[in-house]
Amino acid sequence: MRIVDLRSDTVTLPTPEMRRAMYEAEVGDDVYREDPTINRLEELAAHMTGKEAGLFVTSGTMGNQVAAMVHTQKSDEIICEAESHIYYYEVGGLACLSGAQPRPIAAKHGILTPELIRGAIRNPSDVHVPRTGLICLENTHNRAGGTVYPLEVLAAVKALAGKHGIPVHMDGARIFNAAVALKKDVREIAQHADTVQLCLSKGLGAPVGSLLVGPQELIERARRYRKMLGGGLRQAGILAAAGIVALETMVDRLAEDHQHARMLGEAMAEMGLAIDLETVQTNIVIFDVSPIGVTANEFVANLRERGIKVNAFGEYKIRMVTHFGVTREDVWHTIDTLAKLVKGE
Amino acid sequence: MRIVDLRSDTVTLPTPEMRRAMYEAEVGDDVYREDPTINRLEELAAHMTGKEAGLFVTSGTMGNQVAAMVHTQKSDEIICEAESHIYYYEVGGLACLSGAQPRPIAAKHGILTPELIRGAIRNPSDVHVPRTGLICLENTHNRAGGTVYPLEVLAAVKALAGKHGIPVHMDGARIFNAAVALKKDVREIAQHADTVQLCLSKGLGAPVGSLLVGPQELIERARRYRKMLGGGLRQAGILAAAGIVALETMVDRLAEDHQHARMLGEAMAEMGLAIDLETVQTNIVIFDVSPIGVTANEFVANLRERGIKVNAFGEYKIRMVTHFGVTREDVWHTIDTLAKLVKGE
Amino acid sequence: MRIVDLRSDTVTLPTPEMRRAMYEAEVGDDVYREDPTINRLEELAAHMTGKEAGLFVTSGTMGNQVAAMVHTQKSDEIICEAESHIYYYEVGGLACLSGAQPRPIAAKHGILTPELIRGAIRNPSDVHVPRTGLICLENTHNRAGGTVYPLEVLAAVKALAGKHGIPVHMDGARIFNAAVALKKDVREIAQHADTVQLCLSKGLGAPVGSLLVGPQELIERARRYRKMLGGGLRQAGILAAAGIVALETMVDRLAEDHQHARMLGEAMAEMGLAIDLETVQTNIVIFDVSPIGVTANEFVANLRERGIKVNAFGEYKIRMVTHFGVTREDVWHTIDTLAKLVKGE
Amino acid sequence: MRIVDLRSDTVTLPTPEMRRAMYEAEVGDDVYREDPTINRLEELAAHMTGKEAGLFVTSGTMGNQVAAMVHTQKSDEIICEAESHIYYYEVGGLACLSGAQPRPIAAKHGILTPELIRGAIRNPSDVHVPRTGLICLENTHNRAGGTVYPLEVLAAVKALAGKHGIPVHMDGARIFNAAVALKKDVREIAQHADTVQLCLSKGLGAPVGSLLVGPQELIERARRYRKMLGGGLRQAGILAAAGIVALETMVDRLAEDHQHARMLGEAMAEMGLAIDLETVQTNIVIFDVSPIGVTANEFVANLRERGIKVNAFGEYKIRMVTHFGVTREDVWHTIDTLAKLVKGE
Repeated sequence: MRIVDLRSDTVTLPTPEMRRAMYEAEVGDDVYREDPTINRLEELAAHMTGKEAGLFVTSGTMGNQVAAMVHTQKSDEIICEAESHIYYYEVGGLACLSGAQPRPIAAKHGILTPELIRGAIRNPSDVHVPRTGLICLENTHNRAGGTVYPLEVLAAVKALAGKHGIPVHMDGARIFNAAVALKKDVREIAQHADTVQLCLSKGLGAPVGSLLVGPQELIERARRYRKMLGGGLRQAGILAAAGIVALETMVDRLAEDHQHARMLGEAMAEMGLAIDLETVQTNIVIFDVSPIGVTANEFVANLRERGIKVNAFGEYKIRMVTHFGVTREDVWHTIDTLAKLVKGE
Repeated sequence: MRIVDLRSDTVTLPTPEMRRAMYEAEVGDDVYREDPTINRLEELAAHMTGKEAGLFVTSGTMGNQVAAMVHTQKSDEIICEAESHIYYYEVGGLACLSGAQPRPIAAKHGILTPELIRGAIRNPSDVHVPRTGLICLENTHNRAGGTVYPLEVLAAVKALAGKHGIPVHMDGARIFNAAVALKKDVREIAQHADTVQLCLSKGLGAPVGSLLVGPQELIERARRYRKMLGGGLRQAGILAAAGIVALETMVDRLAEDHQHARMLGEAMAEMGLAIDLETVQTNIVIFDVSPIGVTANEFVANLRERGIKVNAFGEYKIRMVTHFGVTREDVWHTIDTLAKLVKGE
Repeated sequence: MRIVDLRSDTVTLPTPEMRRAMYEAEVGDDVYREDPTINRLEELAAHMTGKEAGLFVTSGTMGNQVAAMVHTQKSDEIICEAESHIYYYEVGGLACLSGAQPRPIAAKHGILTPELIRGAIRNPSDVHVPRTGLICLENTHNRAGGTVYPLEVLAAVKALAGKHGIPVHMDGARIFNAAVALKKDVREIAQHADTVQLCLSKGLGAPVGSLLVGPQELIERARRYRKMLGGGLRQAGILAAAGIVALETMVDRLAEDHQHARMLGEAMAEMGLAIDLETVQTNIVIFDVSPIGVTANEFVANLRERGIKVNAFGEYKIRMVTHFGVTREDVWHTIDTLAKLVKGE
Repeated sequence: MRIVDLRSDTVTLPTPEMRRAMYEAEVGDDVYREDPTINRLEELAAHMTGKEAGLFVTSGTMGNQVAAMVHTQKSDEIICEAESHIYYYEVGGLACLSGAQPRPIAAKHGILTPELIRGAIRNPSDVHVPRTGLICLENTHNRAGGTVYPLEVLAAVKALAGKHGIPVHMDGARIFNAAVALKKDVREIAQHADTVQLCLSKGLGAPVGSLLVGPQELIERARRYRKMLGGGLRQAGILAAAGIVALETMVDRLAEDHQHARMLGEAMAEMGLAIDLETVQTNIVIFDVSPIGVTANEFVANLRERGIKVNAFGEYKIRMVTHFGVTREDVWHTIDTLAKLVKGE
């Protein structure tokens, strides 16, 4: 049976080129800042995003949490989207690690607009309320279906934040998907945030790792918090070697994943599943199976028996993610399988 | 000019009887648990609410925060209403003191129903998400306009919480207002929460202090966190003496405040101000001044010139709170003044 | 039987003058900053210590913890003496509230010298170690026996701290005892610290309260943390009224307590108890009962039967504290009683 | 010029066998627990140490900090040695991540005895003080010179801890060095701690990673905190593959490193450098260069010019660490070079 794993782009396996790069990687002790491959990766990521400096971290969660620690003071409030990863999926880290209170705001398609943010900024002279210390944007927004921030929204948010002296952090775990979808250089996106976290291990296929990029001074302070969280590795160049391959060779091909997601989404709409095609902008497809009278868990189990792995995302919601481990044939096969399932075959 | 202060019931001044009680209070060192007046107050509050033990704290905020510290473990999530005091007005304390992430949910009239709560309880076996560690209910709910939890909603929430092994804390800063509105013994309300915080210093008129009541073992642990926050006082019996007067003599008269609030609310509705009279259940009146074409700040300033003090509660929202420092005459005077202002006189 | 309570100067009861002041206190809502008596107390304390601003807090612990929160960033290290109150007796608050790691250093007579501090300041460029964020001095030092910092040590510590850009906080719960012992204005002591916490409720006899004094900007930020900890009171002027009496009338008489402590200490040395008379500089007497072959707990129990209350301070150590509730006759009586006990009568 | 790097055993480079294992590693998404190589490594580590379960973490710091988070509640106190890694070198993580106050105790050769620990356990009924929540032992102790806990001391500490209901965590970053030095199975050491952290990346030569081992239930809870800190990796089997090689093939050869350290230590003693040979029990050599009239920094610089890299460990102290990247010839060469340097050649 053909197996198609659409649960997440985190299931991607390293390419042969990455394995070779890891095998041959020149390494050193990165805590002493002597790992040449790590240094090269950090410079590359900073350069690609137009930032002063970069810091290798072991995961997107670590990058986001370290950013929050650096930007905020204890008891600050952090504005974020109600289903953003940093709030929804990071085990309460903002509160526990930064001592900062999240201020989650539900937003259409996960896109926080200046209007929504303005209403949530606290009055700095009211002693009852926390200081607003950070605004977090997730781009693309995972739980909203891989949606992309329009550049003009980003610019307007940054302007508003600047007026209030509030920094902006972008959870850009899939920022390259955003850039490919907008057909823009990633720098044009990253310029609207003080710090950006980007992942090597999702669509780009590296086995482990993310980067936090931003101003030099801030990255230096982040380095200390990274050490505290346990992210100061030794011969991390092994991982960095695969990360360099990812950044240098895997970005452009994301367009293919987007095309695949679009194919899946349109097919599902035709089959009568509930899906908002407006949200299918990148490599994520979220849809609702209630029209066919099953729960998400039933649907997942049923598909699994037919070799298709997907994730439940709520009582009736399903998420599919395309990635370079999913071929055009896999997509056709998935659509066929879905069609049979929907018809009750 | 007659001054009417409707900003909050926290502006109430101690009664002569309270002052006398404070003057004569028998005191001791409460950290050594030798203050007889404190001991008496703690027993009284526990008895009135049907709980095993009570703990004097210096404010409602301290009572709520200590409760959260005792109930939760670091990185837990706390379900609360989106505009509840513990989330909105306690300077981010849940995150900073308990290391716990708030999960704010917007609810009609501030009343969290089992349906709303059920959807927010986290899957305990998913390693990405925090453990749901506490449910907080605010009764009456301040920012919703002093609304009261129906007893059957409380019972249903407690049952749901119990099924998931999650404790319930009630921010009962104004629990006696709820009891008076429901015409029920406060015990019937308090039974649906593991711990309750109640204030002596709002409608009850004592100058300083609140109590946290609950199971003995939990209150013992709360005692240590209270000490850490700086709430271990010495001759606190001075304050407790006024608190005893408050609990023993000031509860029944809250009905009068509720009547006053109702008079204000109905008059305003007639004047064409936007007000949801359903919310005017106790001593708080929240209304919207946009129908008369002014902002909240303009309205506040205008009323102030006429001797009436109220608080802005949003861009167009105003809050008035009745309390024992506001007489029937003050209420008529306020209505007259408002009527003139609305007519542009 | 005559009862003499030497357990702590925290057991002092308010004087009739204080009770009267509390009875008559003009009060308001201090969260709105409208309590005139609180405002007067805060100005008085700031003036007496030569600082810009003051903040009323409910206890010395709250004052110390709020100071640490304001001075440090999460993960900083705080240098303090190994048996200082802020480290030893505040329930681990530095770690739990500030997320800051204490660096306790054992010092002779509790007096941290520049030499001791210098060795503990961390290398700011080493990513493995916390940043040194604060130096705390306790003056007088309780567990060391009420010892006083010489002014030249304070000056040298401040100079060292300044060189490294590290602020200094003084836990001056008994700073007036230090000033009286040195026969100096309290300003001459306070000038060597950025912030000072001083207590109204120990030797000065007020029932409840302490002040944090320091630069205006810092005190404003402290106000927010005080609110979070639950120290934002309402009609706190009741307590402030007693505090003003304490500051205005009770300082000079501390000299008498010191004399009493000296009398006790010298008598004990003569009786053969182990005592370092060098440490008996103010109102605390710490001695060791092992020479007479009993444990501290046995000694405490034995004295208690004779009406003298003291505290065990270790397996063989006893602490006595003199205060205005202890008269000259009480002191003679205590010495007589001790003498009999030591002789086995 | 021959380069000998004695700064740390963290500088070791992966062996060809490790590189091959990484190249060929079967991997999966470990957050879904589908990485077979990680699963195998975790079982292997648990089996070797006689514990129920293991958890791969990215560094020793992460393993230690996660252990503290699992064992303690906020505001607990943690007893540890004054120069132990978890206190001295982990950026204040105990306070910042666990909200727990360290109680550092200076101990001869870094070995905490039951006597030292007993005096530091807090009175659980005193509301002023934190609860003692954890005892941490570092074995071997890095800053004390790689010293080994005698098994009978471990047994006695565990017995004392058990009596007080306090768990014991062992920072066993170099536990295999301890086992080799004692000529005991590592299980005999690990049995005396509830949890143990052990490193793959020091003497064992793997590029990245440590394990936390302990009871199943506790490791499950640790998994969530690991995710929060950012240690939930994706295709971590790459790293695990090298870790398995490390555990299976690199332990026995540590004896050679110990021999080399001994050779270095004895030679230095003969040259007149200040060294306590009693501490040279494993692969670390700490000595004092003051007898030859130079500072540590001067000594480090001077040696560096001659191709020998060592670390300053204080104003006059130097640390050398032997590891599998240092051959017998390197040791002779180092001794020759030192001898010349000492003679001023």
